[in-house]
Amino acid sequence: MINTIWWIVPLSALFALIMAYIFFKNMMKESEGTPRMKEIAQYVREGAMAYLSRQYKVVIKVFLVLIVLLAVLAYLGVQNPFVPIAFLTGGFFSGLCGYLGMKTATFASARTAHGASQSLNKGLKVAFRSGAVMGLIVVGFGLLDIAAWFWFLNDIIFSPENMTNGLSFLGLDLVHAGTDEHAKMIEITTTMLTFGMGASTQALFARVGGGIYTKAADVGADLVGKVEAGIPEDDPRNPATIADNVGDNVGDVAGMGADLYESYCGSILATAALGAALPGLAGDLQMKAVVAPMIVAAIGILLSVVGIFMVRTKESATQKNLLNALLIGTGGSSLLIILALVVLAYFDWITWGVLGSVISGLVAGVVIGQGTEYYTSDEYKPTRGIAKQAEQGPATTIIDGIAVGMFSTWLPVVTIVVGIIAAYGFSGGFQNFAQGVYGIGFAAVGMLSTLGITLATDAFGPIADNAGGNAEMSELPSEVRERTDALDMLGNTTAATGKGFAIGSAALTAMALLAAYMEEIRLWLGKVPEKGEEFLAVTGLDSLKDAGIKDFTDFYDLTIFNPMLLGGLFIGAMMAFVFCAMTMKAVGRAAGDMVDEVRRQFKSIPGIMEGTGKPDYARCVEISTKGAQKEMLLPSIIAIAVPVLVGIILGVAGVMGLLAGGLTAGFTLAVMLNNSGGAWDNAKKYIEKGNHGGKGSEAHHAGVVGDTVGDPFKDTSGPSLNILIKLMTMVSVVMAGLTVASSLF
Amino acid sequence: MINTIWWIVPLSALFALIMAYIFFKNMMKESEGTPRMKEIAQYVREGAMAYLSRQYKVVIKVFLVLIVLLAVLAYLGVQNPFVPIAFLTGGFFSGLCGYLGMKTATFASARTAHGASQSLNKGLKVAFRSGAVMGLIVVGFGLLDIAAWFWFLNDIIFSPENMTNGLSFLGLDLVHAGTDEHAKMIEITTTMLTFGMGASTQALFARVGGGIYTKAADVGADLVGKVEAGIPEDDPRNPATIADNVGDNVGDVAGMGADLYESYCGSILATAALGAALPGLAGDLQMKAVVAPMIVAAIGILLSVVGIFMVRTKESATQKNLLNALLIGTGGSSLLIILALVVLAYFDWITWGVLGSVISGLVAGVVIGQGTEYYTSDEYKPTRGIAKQAEQGPATTIIDGIAVGMFSTWLPVVTIVVGIIAAYGFSGGFQNFAQGVYGIGFAAVGMLSTLGITLATDAFGPIADNAGGNAEMSELPSEVRERTDALDMLGNTTAATGKGFAIGSAALTAMALLAAYMEEIRLWLGKVPEKGEEFLAVTGLDSLKDAGIKDFTDFYDLTIFNPMLLGGLFIGAMMAFVFCAMTMKAVGRAAGDMVDEVRRQFKSIPGIMEGTGKPDYARCVEISTKGAQKEMLLPSIIAIAVPVLVGIILGVAGVMGLLAGGLTAGFTLAVMLNNSGGAWDNAKKYIEKGNHGGKGSEAHHAGVVGDTVGDPFKDTSGPSLNILIKLMTMVSVVMAGLTVASSLF
Repeated sequence: MINTIWWIVPLSALFALIMAYIFFKNMMKESEGTPRMKEIAQYVREGAMAYLSRQYKVVIKVFLVLIVLLAVLAYLGVQNPFVPIAFLTGGFFSGLCGYLGMKTATFASARTAHGASQSLNKGLKVAFRSGAVMGLIVVGFGLLDIAAWFWFLNDIIFSPENMTNGLSFLGLDLVHAGTDEHAKMIEITTTMLTFGMGASTQALFARVGGGIYTKAADVGADLVGKVEAGIPEDDPRNPATIADNVGDNVGDVAGMGADLYESYCGSILATAALGAALPGLAGDLQMKAVVAPMIVAAIGILLSVVGIFMVRTKESATQKNLLNALLIGTGGSSLLIILALVVLAYFDWITWGVLGSVISGLVAGVVIGQGTEYYTSDEYKPTRGIAKQAEQGPATTIIDGIAVGMFSTWLPVVTIVVGIIAAYGFSGGFQNFAQGVYGIGFAAVGMLSTLGITLATDAFGPIADNAGGNAEMSELPSEVRERTDALDMLGNTTAATGKGFAIGSAALTAMALLAAYMEEIRLWLGKVPEKGEEFLAVTGLDSLKDAGIKDFTDFYDLTIFNPMLLGGLFIGAMMAFVFCAMTMKAVGRAAGDMVDEVRRQFKSIPGIMEGTGKPDYARCVEISTKGAQKEMLLPSIIAIAVPVLVGIILGVAGVMGLLAGGLTAGFTLAVMLNNSGGAWDNAKKYIEKGNHGGKGSEAHHAGVVGDTVGDPFKDTSGPSLNILIKLMTMVSVVMAGLTVASSLF
Repeated sequence: MINTIWWIVPLSALFALIMAYIFFKNMMKESEGTPRMKEIAQYVREGAMAYLSRQYKVVIKVFLVLIVLLAVLAYLGVQNPFVPIAFLTGGFFSGLCGYLGMKTATFASARTAHGASQSLNKGLKVAFRSGAVMGLIVVGFGLLDIAAWFWFLNDIIFSPENMTNGLSFLGLDLVHAGTDEHAKMIEITTTMLTFGMGASTQALFARVGGGIYTKAADVGADLVGKVEAGIPEDDPRNPATIADNVGDNVGDVAGMGADLYESYCGSILATAALGAALPGLAGDLQMKAVVAPMIVAAIGILLSVVGIFMVRTKESATQKNLLNALLIGTGGSSLLIILALVVLAYFDWITWGVLGSVISGLVAGVVIGQGTEYYTSDEYKPTRGIAKQAEQGPATTIIDGIAVGMFSTWLPVVTIVVGIIAAYGFSGGFQNFAQGVYGIGFAAVGMLSTLGITLATDAFGPIADNAGGNAEMSELPSEVRERTDALDMLGNTTAATGKGFAIGSAALTAMALLAAYMEEIRLWLGKVPEKGEEFLAVTGLDSLKDAGIKDFTDFYDLTIFNPMLLGGLFIGAMMAFVFCAMTMKAVGRAAGDMVDEVRRQFKSIPGIMEGTGKPDYARCVEISTKGAQKEMLLPSIIAIAVPVLVGIILGVAGVMGLLAGGLTAGFTLAVMLNNSGGAWDNAKKYIEKGNHGGKGSEAHHAGVVGDTVGDPFKDTSGPSLNILIKLMTMVSVVMAGLTVASSLF
């Protein structure tokens, strides 16, 4: 039976969803403003939904193929039989979050613009609460999925009767007769761990597809509209302008949400699996260790909601006031969570060590976020240095921006390393390795415990951006535009820190998954010889059945000297670079298609430039959608296939190398791409404020080149690496059975 | 006593030096041409020597500091007492190679130009044979240093009497009384291994300083001369033009030579150390295992000289003919080496497994070189794609170039991985780990066995480039310039493949050093408690003296899960990025100083633009020299200090992570930087040939931006990473005693 306090987990998940619904309803009560505002919002909404429905069609096809594959592997005895179904639920909920979050965002933009026409605080409130819908949906559905599966496996599948009699389904052995309680919990948690792959796969398409879409539309709109036709940004005469606004939602709302949904579930599930495997724990203590990460997450949800209510500002707010308003919300949530956990620790529900690990993760998240701000904000030296270099032309702008991005990696890397070691140490890793890695899992859970509110600050950005676009296209008074601009700038800052948060949490989650991968391998080493009769008979491995392999450490050389492992490390580092190359090239090609289409419309639609002919917005949305769908397929297949191939060819050691190499090089590269891109963007804006010659100067031209190079850096390739890192690990976890089976050759 | 066949080692080293001297003398017999040609050559020569003497002054200071440090550590018992002296000899010979090679190159340029005025073949021969001087000096001095130390340690220090009575010097225990023959050879080889650090440190300054110098001069000369003043490249009125020509020698001759000198010595020494530690070998067999890598290198030298004589061409040679002429030389050498080793294997002097490993390395070198050509030559799709993107402006040029560089990493990475595993497997690694890593060492030795001739093709490039500059400034007839241009283009191709070869061999050498690092740690684990009485007493570690630690694998957790190791991996990857950032920034600053100086001279020297006033070349050389010296210090200190600090803080596991992370991420990043830079360079040249609008078109402007961004990529930051990778490993090897001592806390 599950512990009573555990019920806080499903309840807080439901609470998050109810609050999300209330925020949504309140937002919908606001007026969308003038008919023109409604019309534009409607275009964006239609475009976003058109994109999503198309993406989901591709995702469904890929899911079907993967489910069949997983089912075949399950039938052969080298895959957990629950995985094909759980794969679906993870993917479904992730997709649902994207759908609802985007729907909310696209409903909110005109309302934010209208709110801003009343007051700045009103605009902030509408946009932020709408962003909170996304944040709460993600944590709500994430935790609900986890809670439901945990209850289902623990109370239904592994019911006392089934544990006595065993349970089979379609010839697959679901519960062994005579399973003991300890083994049961390990079985449940390692099974649940593999559920994350559905979320991972859907996140891959959302992040990569969304990233390609948004930049193809952005670059396409800018190149022809701003540069060739000389019309301003967000001008309704530009056929790509709606696609551009759609892109903000597609990339920054749905893509970011799916990314963090995956981290959220992955970190909780990995930590639970590590908790179940803690040596020397049994019965209630083992149960406590398993549900502890879920409970920390549940508390995080409740206090994130409190934080959301703390965000408000006064009318004459400066940029600093606005930023402070958000900081009070996120910082307040963090502090409250720590306080709540102190109480839990005091009542012995978690150890003080776990508390230390959670705090390590929370602090690391804050440091990475603030560090990102230093290297990308125009208030500090690095970005201003780039702006100064712009005086000497585009080449020096590019070199300096790349150097800034590369140099900036030191801070997040050192923070993650210190965070990992602190979390390991607090939980007693120097005495007991397993407890230490359990602590690393809690660092990830801790960092993500505030996700309800941090994601709200993220999703806020594109809503404010779209509100600005809406105000521009609807020709609202300039004071409204000024207010939406203030909100938009705030959104740019939160987007940069949000990217730092996303990659930081991806790294910690991948670390936890990496540790949990061991458990999966350990389990399969016991299982494959026992369970995979058919597979073993087919492959002639049945002679190994009685080999009596007890532990993977007896069996695999996982020291850093093993050439298989080193080979994996090389391939992991290379994967990060090749994946980036592919996504960058994809943006280039998709943007090229968009440029052709916009040029075609300018030529063939009469009166388009005079505002009498109506541009075909939908066509541009479709072009960008098609391009994104086409281009995301190859990198996606590679990201899924390489870990499987490395597992088959280089074995478990090779996979460990691949994951560690992909994680370390990918993290560093992602930070560099995010920060270079962010710094170029803000350097350009700094020049536009009138520095180094201002708009139209040589420096400005150079700054625009930097910004254009930075676009795919920070919005496509960099964020896509988060997914690559986690997905490769998740695929390895799910394919552990196959890897073990092939390593027994 | 050393085996008789071993004497081929010092003899072939001397042979290389004699041949180098003969080539040098023959070259000096050629005429330097007109007085004007002599004058210009003289300027370049003076500039190059001024640079070198200044650099050596800095290097000497750094060496003095490091020697004192090493001596103190030796006195405390955590450093090998020979290291301070050997550190000097390694550095001295490396520096000597740079000095002699540069001297040769600067004497050869005018003679090449004069030779080209007679015939293309004559020009090729003068330039190539002069390049061969550098190649032969490097392998000659490298192997001579190794042979001398081996003889000195084996026959003098570890003489039978000393082994019976023991040997002390200044209170330091050099030979234990009663050391057995087996332990003696391990002691000798691990001692020799640490000699590489002198070469490493000198290489660091040569590569980083040279890289900064050459690009500061190049960018400075171009920005003011070509862009602002509108005078052609290599125009004698440009004060920075001599500095630019000096830079080619400083970066590509001295820098490249020092880099490969280090790889050459490091790979041989590491393999010897791994050979000595092979389990179950004693007496003659152990001796054979130790000297085998030296003998392979010696054979490589002899057959490289044969290859050098095979390089010749006919008068009407096309670019392809010229390239073939070089290929016949390098390919011929490789084949002859393989044949010779087949004979050795047949007579049981090396195993067939070792032969397989050597071939793995040789083949990997060729594949990486040719792959580099594919991704950077304008005859293939990637570079042409960049040229096409240039039509759409600088931003897309940059994005596409970065994508090409990133994508191109797959080939060298896969090649290295396959090469490592093949070398490991051929030498029996799947049965016996130690034999496998010994095989990996031989892959490195194999790849570098042709160094005598491959370095000749490398050093040929800057000589031809300078010959072109000399012809231009001396206003020689256009047919001469055409011939030197043909040679220069050939030099550009060999420079690109040479960079691939340099990074590939750096990776394999670092792999071998990484494996040898274990041996060093193993040795120190035995020694620190025994020998470092004072150190242990001071640090309170003497209680550990009798801890009875036998083997590092009992003591250190070197599995990939250890958070210390993972932390090291993160830091290693980050080091590659931060080091790049620092060198890129350095180029920017040094180039800025140069721009200011050239502008000043254009303003203040009367008649300079009319050719009546004489520009102050020496001042520009000095500016660039000063800038390079100043800027190389900080990255150098970091490269040396970080491995030491990581060793003290994170221990042996952290160091292993650092080295593996730096190696894998650094290798991938270096390939990307080299190939992006090379592709941009050739894309620009492809446009200049009249494609996509040709010179002066929009596409050309964009191409120039790409080329300028690529300059520090391919000539400063990329090549510097070779050194970073090897130096961090070498520092760790040398500081193994300190790491072990501090890990005993």
